[in-house]
Amino acid sequence: MNDLVRPFGPAQPVVHDWHLDSVVSALHAARADWRQSQGRLRDFSTREFPSRTALRDIVATLAAALFPMRLGPPGLRDSSEDFFVGHSLAVALDALAEQVVLELRYSARLNGLSAEDIEAQSVAIVQQFAAALPDQRRLLDADITAAWQGDPAARSVDEVLLCYPGINAILHHRLAHLLYRAGLPLVARIIAEIAHGETGIDIHPGAQIGAGFFIDHGTGVVIGETAVIGERVRLYQAVTLGAKRFEQGEDGSLLKGQPRHPIVEDDVVIYAGATVLGRITIGRGSSIGGNVWLTRSVPPGSQISQASLQAASP
Amino acid sequence: MNDLVRPFGPAQPVVHDWHLDSVVSALHAARADWRQSQGRLRDFSTREFPSRTALRDIVATLAAALFPMRLGPPGLRDSSEDFFVGHSLAVALDALAEQVVLELRYSARLNGLSAEDIEAQSVAIVQQFAAALPDQRRLLDADITAAWQGDPAARSVDEVLLCYPGINAILHHRLAHLLYRAGLPLVARIIAEIAHGETGIDIHPGAQIGAGFFIDHGTGVVIGETAVIGERVRLYQAVTLGAKRFEQGEDGSLLKGQPRHPIVEDDVVIYAGATVLGRITIGRGSSIGGNVWLTRSVPPGSQISQASLQAASP
Amino acid sequence: MNDLVRPFGPAQPVVHDWHLDSVVSALHAARADWRQSQGRLRDFSTREFPSRTALRDIVATLAAALFPMRLGPPGLRDSSEDFFVGHSLAVALDALAEQVVLELRYSARLNGLSAEDIEAQSVAIVQQFAAALPDQRRLLDADITAAWQGDPAARSVDEVLLCYPGINAILHHRLAHLLYRAGLPLVARIIAEIAHGETGIDIHPGAQIGAGFFIDHGTGVVIGETAVIGERVRLYQAVTLGAKRFEQGEDGSLLKGQPRHPIVEDDVVIYAGATVLGRITIGRGSSIGGNVWLTRSVPPGSQISQASLQAASP
Amino acid sequence: MNDLVRPFGPAQPVVHDWHLDSVVSALHAARADWRQSQGRLRDFSTREFPSRTALRDIVATLAAALFPMRLGPPGLRDSSEDFFVGHSLAVALDALAEQVVLELRYSARLNGLSAEDIEAQSVAIVQQFAAALPDQRRLLDADITAAWQGDPAARSVDEVLLCYPGINAILHHRLAHLLYRAGLPLVARIIAEIAHGETGIDIHPGAQIGAGFFIDHGTGVVIGETAVIGERVRLYQAVTLGAKRFEQGEDGSLLKGQPRHPIVEDDVVIYAGATVLGRITIGRGSSIGGNVWLTRSVPPGSQISQASLQAASP
Amino acid sequence: MNDLVRPFGPAQPVVHDWHLDSVVSALHAARADWRQSQGRLRDFSTREFPSRTALRDIVATLAAALFPMRLGPPGLRDSSEDFFVGHSLAVALDALAEQVVLELRYSARLNGLSAEDIEAQSVAIVQQFAAALPDQRRLLDADITAAWQGDPAARSVDEVLLCYPGINAILHHRLAHLLYRAGLPLVARIIAEIAHGETGIDIHPGAQIGAGFFIDHGTGVVIGETAVIGERVRLYQAVTLGAKRFEQGEDGSLLKGQPRHPIVEDDVVIYAGATVLGRITIGRGSSIGGNVWLTRSVPPGSQISQASLQAASP
Amino acid sequence: MNDLVRPFGPAQPVVHDWHLDSVVSALHAARADWRQSQGRLRDFSTREFPSRTALRDIVATLAAALFPMRLGPPGLRDSSEDFFVGHSLAVALDALAEQVVLELRYSARLNGLSAEDIEAQSVAIVQQFAAALPDQRRLLDADITAAWQGDPAARSVDEVLLCYPGINAILHHRLAHLLYRAGLPLVARIIAEIAHGETGIDIHPGAQIGAGFFIDHGTGVVIGETAVIGERVRLYQAVTLGAKRFEQGEDGSLLKGQPRHPIVEDDVVIYAGATVLGRITIGRGSSIGGNVWLTRSVPPGSQISQASLQAASP
Repeated sequence: MNDLVRPFGPAQPVVHDWHLDSVVSALHAARADWRQSQGRLRDFSTREFPSRTALRDIVATLAAALFPMRLGPPGLRDSSEDFFVGHSLAVALDALAEQVVLELRYSARLNGLSAEDIEAQSVAIVQQFAAALPDQRRLLDADITAAWQGDPAARSVDEVLLCYPGINAILHHRLAHLLYRAGLPLVARIIAEIAHGETGIDIHPGAQIGAGFFIDHGTGVVIGETAVIGERVRLYQAVTLGAKRFEQGEDGSLLKGQPRHPIVEDDVVIYAGATVLGRITIGRGSSIGGNVWLTRSVPPGSQISQASLQAASP
Repeated sequence: MNDLVRPFGPAQPVVHDWHLDSVVSALHAARADWRQSQGRLRDFSTREFPSRTALRDIVATLAAALFPMRLGPPGLRDSSEDFFVGHSLAVALDALAEQVVLELRYSARLNGLSAEDIEAQSVAIVQQFAAALPDQRRLLDADITAAWQGDPAARSVDEVLLCYPGINAILHHRLAHLLYRAGLPLVARIIAEIAHGETGIDIHPGAQIGAGFFIDHGTGVVIGETAVIGERVRLYQAVTLGAKRFEQGEDGSLLKGQPRHPIVEDDVVIYAGATVLGRITIGRGSSIGGNVWLTRSVPPGSQISQASLQAASP
Repeated sequence: MNDLVRPFGPAQPVVHDWHLDSVVSALHAARADWRQSQGRLRDFSTREFPSRTALRDIVATLAAALFPMRLGPPGLRDSSEDFFVGHSLAVALDALAEQVVLELRYSARLNGLSAEDIEAQSVAIVQQFAAALPDQRRLLDADITAAWQGDPAARSVDEVLLCYPGINAILHHRLAHLLYRAGLPLVARIIAEIAHGETGIDIHPGAQIGAGFFIDHGTGVVIGETAVIGERVRLYQAVTLGAKRFEQGEDGSLLKGQPRHPIVEDDVVIYAGATVLGRITIGRGSSIGGNVWLTRSVPPGSQISQASLQAASP
Repeated sequence: MNDLVRPFGPAQPVVHDWHLDSVVSALHAARADWRQSQGRLRDFSTREFPSRTALRDIVATLAAALFPMRLGPPGLRDSSEDFFVGHSLAVALDALAEQVVLELRYSARLNGLSAEDIEAQSVAIVQQFAAALPDQRRLLDADITAAWQGDPAARSVDEVLLCYPGINAILHHRLAHLLYRAGLPLVARIIAEIAHGETGIDIHPGAQIGAGFFIDHGTGVVIGETAVIGERVRLYQAVTLGAKRFEQGEDGSLLKGQPRHPIVEDDVVIYAGATVLGRITIGRGSSIGGNVWLTRSVPPGSQISQASLQAASP
Repeated sequence: MNDLVRPFGPAQPVVHDWHLDSVVSALHAARADWRQSQGRLRDFSTREFPSRTALRDIVATLAAALFPMRLGPPGLRDSSEDFFVGHSLAVALDALAEQVVLELRYSARLNGLSAEDIEAQSVAIVQQFAAALPDQRRLLDADITAAWQGDPAARSVDEVLLCYPGINAILHHRLAHLLYRAGLPLVARIIAEIAHGETGIDIHPGAQIGAGFFIDHGTGVVIGETAVIGERVRLYQAVTLGAKRFEQGEDGSLLKGQPRHPIVEDDVVIYAGATVLGRITIGRGSSIGGNVWLTRSVPPGSQISQASLQAASP
Repeated sequence: MNDLVRPFGPAQPVVHDWHLDSVVSALHAARADWRQSQGRLRDFSTREFPSRTALRDIVATLAAALFPMRLGPPGLRDSSEDFFVGHSLAVALDALAEQVVLELRYSARLNGLSAEDIEAQSVAIVQQFAAALPDQRRLLDADITAAWQGDPAARSVDEVLLCYPGINAILHHRLAHLLYRAGLPLVARIIAEIAHGETGIDIHPGAQIGAGFFIDHGTGVVIGETAVIGERVRLYQAVTLGAKRFEQGEDGSLLKGQPRHPIVEDDVVIYAGATVLGRITIGRGSSIGGNVWLTRSVPPGSQISQASLQAASP
């Protein structure tokens, strides 16, 4: 019986190269052109940026510290739980402080912070962040309860925490939002995009979201920077809470920096594929049907469906 | 020539801390409140859960055992293929048995299984699972053939197996569904969410899916727990086979546990963005157009498009 | 105080096995049946395929070589930048050459390439690919600028490069497209699916895309193989540039290999959820509204919305 | 300019194999013969052994818990030290308990321990081991002090702990000796051999060693199972405290299990290459010169050198 | 309460660099000088060498295939043992074949082997190596038995296999010696040095060693290239079987390539620190005492000690 | 057919714990006692030490930069060699600078260096170290040549560089000695101990060693801090160049800090096991035989053996 093996290759290697010197030179020139176009002088060229890899580890460690029995290591028990929580927090907060310093140094170009300012601010930010963690755990407990109550397929709160991408997304968001409010938009955005990549749920870290929030399935959900969401709100996959893009400024450029995303009041449900655009308000307790396209406010208790919209059209 | 280096930091470190003791205490209190609200006493606090990381490795190893030449290690050949398959199965099935025991112990709270019951059940479950693998390989061969026939961009069956997220999703689903039917909803759901995270395709492990199934592109597809799908069915991205959510029980809570997702008969095609809701039936050979919103049964051979729906509306 | 520990298990192990011999035999039979159905004889059974893991590392290394200060290692500075770029290119291009050889050997079944042909072609392909990299960097600089100008939430070009999934997707696409055009559809497709898995954005490597391209949010975007996109085009999440699938050939099979996806001219904006199908042309400067379903060409400067479409329907 | 590349190998692979089936069969037969010669029936064939890799991690974790500021992670400080120590102990002791169970199960063949006995014993052993750790730290502090005082090249106690192989060896020994005395000779021996491999110092875990022990350089030191060493003893490289091997039993086999290694009293120094054999006693405060070969007891305060030995020979 | 944190470093980085360009140039010049002095032209500059890391993995995998229940993965049992052995061999032998090719290509400079020769030889070498493995297992079984019988501290054959560095060294040697005899001195030497680094036992791969060989403790043992050792020989730490170095050639250079190390006949014991030099013969059943310095042959049954030597000196 | 599986463990876990709180408290007390005994106040408790793991990577990277074709990555060739060297140096020197700062901060307790001093000194030290690397390469080339000429078993200079522990030891020493002379005894010692652990060769970083140095076999060699070794010196295993330990100061403590190790002049050979003690001089071209014990100077051209020593004894 004979078989085939992987080929070993010839003993006489062939002759060629990738012309590295010329490629390296051309890339050098391309970088130089870009930096000149951006007004970036050489004194900028050594700054480091916050690291996605580092922030991924930091969030995973904080998540384990928040839910040690579910997301922590196996074997944990009552007598060792607090040791684990304390050690995980020490590691994660030290690492977070490094990322905070990197962002503050980065923005120091613009705001002129001194080294002493950066150090003092970073300490204050991480201390406040740490102090806010217990409240975040309670908010997330409410989110988990909402998921368990809102999905007929959910069998236990543990399944919800371990499996549901919507819970993973809101966990990242609640941490990212704390950092966004502390003046760290870049660190916050990186955390949000980690969750986006893992879940397909894109929540801008600026969005304000109340307790008991639940997103089912989740893929394709987009929630914009200035959205405001009340308590016990439930969303399904592919819901957009976006800006109304057709409106432009006088010079044709997009208007920046203003409230431009929806306000969703308490106890609202928005079904899959619905698109809600602009600084409109969805009144408390309303229900927005699947695939609905909504660009105007609706009063509390509204039941909006495609049919009702078409019926309402003249 | 001078360059800038990364700063080294001062020799005189600054003074501060994260107040770990108080944060740890407050998190301890938050956990205690949650456990009390859930009626969880201390005898529960050391149970372990099935592990997403372990299940990810198990599925990857089983996939390599099912398709050794495509998903196995480089260098495999006829004379070594069965050794690889046998060894991979031994490793994966042992590891799976551990996860099965973890879920059975977890659910032992509710169903009162003894240690002996758990051991006997786990052995029986894994033996049945192992015995079912050859049939799963044949089903997946049919799925791959369907993809190759259904996509004009596909160049070979190998490209389909190596590249298509739809194949990755159905591979996870077929394994998860076996475990779901064996009474392991948590393990099954974790496997389903692994595929969801990687592909954006969310198939509940309870869904029943026939041979020759193909999802193209796939991002945003949602298939519910009680869906029943026939043979040679083809879906495109963002298709939802969901429950009709507006119906509620008498006390306002959602009705649980009943057949509530569509039945899709053989040879149906459903195009991108279509939403099919409720326990309705899509008759054999029908074609459902893109973005269609469908909440009632259609007979075999139907050709449903947005236009036809609007024309049919009175 | 007493705690619970993880159970150790009994000293007397139980008796059972997984019946590996029979499962291995049945899987062997299933593989044999499949290979026979595919006409694959044993001389095919040892070929290796391009590796997703290897290509993921190659693209990450090339991305770092293209943007050393942003995506390269920490600590880089002017005096070390070119060393890093040159070394990264050497490593990545050598590794890419191995993957190119694997694909050329794989397709040698069909095109009859000799070993010498494969070697010569692979060298030529990688040399051309390397020489094209500086231009790709300039194209990507234009893409980043477009994102920064097009999103009111973007705070800096650095945030765009580090965070935006749309930039990650176009970076992968521009490299994949080079390889697609060099006659490596399988390698190109694997790179495209790496980006699809990370971002939810599915761009077929055959698509032609001009400079200054920006996709915001991105989840659910699908761009087909023969799409042609001009300069400064902007897309939002869940936009499909697809084929019009209802058209079939005479024998009922799908028609393959022809131009079947849209042409999008310069300066077009397509909002979230819009579906554009078939070989139609979106004229320069047009704006396609959210959720619009479009299967016919529109002239330059068109403003298409759901309302305008319904108004235009007879 | 032309360079050489790594060869790619031919497209036409050559034909051969390793005849795996026959090698596997012959190895199977060799194992069967061995097991028969050892009287090992199949009921033995699934037992697991303690793991060198696991024990290496356990010892490293315990070392960090014993010396958190020197051997623990960077960034530790007063406020986080106890959290780290507690968490590290929890992880290491749980892992140690698994290894203890493996050894007790292994020896259960001989001593007939039941599953309940094994569980109870393993818990008791690990609890006693944990309770003994603080005293081991104090012993090791004395060892470090002795090294710092005894070596003119030592600049600080920190250098001693971080660099000296003799300290690494005694740290492993003190932990291994606790386990040896608890009835775990296999686990203890594996730990001893980890240190032997790293340092070239071979201390049998049965050896009894007092406080303030220091080995300088260390390579080639051998200390036998029944050696007894007092306080403040100092050894140099290649010192052997061995059994006197020329004595044999009546049937020609080596006598086993009796005290057969030296007793070294307090404050003795033994210089490099000295060989001390048999159950002899080196009296308190003696000094044994380099390369000395000693097989009889010497009184307290002796100064033994090669010259003195030769002078003493008749 | 206040603590100290790791310093963050200043926002204003300092100015300096490592003058990389000049260091790189000077190193380039140093390499060029060396290559010129060695007569190495550019056609040599791309050859690869056998890899220590790869060979370490290969030997570890072969060891697990030889002793699957002791050195293989946990969980192995009768029904899965052969699958593991077969798969491990396939992986290890393929990897070994790559290393064999690298050495044959390296030596092709000298012996003028063609690419076809290299391929054919490498296949033949690995096939013979594979076929010899079962006999090596039987030899190693005899070695293990010898260790268990020869050391009063050994409690079981399993402890011997898992713990004794002498067994680790002879396992590496038996594999290395096969490869040395097959004409692969470089691969063989690398394997020998892996064992030397782990155990302190330095056995040249050319040494011929019979069954039932045991080295106790082992650190410092050196066995030369042309040594010949019979069956059931036992050595202790720091034994040298070396060449007699004082003899030199006429031109003052060392004589190369001739038999220059001892012949040790069956059933010899050599105690710690003994030095045996030159092409002498230690007769069957002799015993060489500790620290003995021996440069002339001794007849069978000799009992050599320091005392006996001194007595024999005139 | 039935097999045994690994036991799963009972569903009813047993009750116990490790009494972590009391162990943590007792360890806290032990640390407090130690720190008080050492006069270490809390302002010392957060300093970091140089890291053995980091230094191991740094030396490995520098070794690859010094010998890119032999110790660098596979695939390197003329056109990519300098890129690799430059990038490796940048990475290694940056990492070294961090370790240098850690040692300077550590010693700042004693020498009162300010933060600015530390920064300036560390930059200067690393610049000088970098500038000295090309000369170290040339020294190592001479060492390799000496090994190849001095060992009849050596087949090529490549085998020597890849395999010989003596070369690995001198490579570490030459780098460590540069750092020792730059005032970094702790970093230097850690590097020396890395080599000691890997090779069994213990060279204090303070030792001065000339070009063309070769240690064969090497295990057990010890070279003291103030040793001075000329050019073309060759040592064998277990040679000690130590201090004469029997001499003590008036108060009984060992005398520190003075020249106390041998001076070995050019072209000396010292055979295995020889012990040379005290500030004596071995004259140029001398040969010291195996196991010789030498504590007095010998003139150039001496041939010292055990026999010659005994003959010389009165």
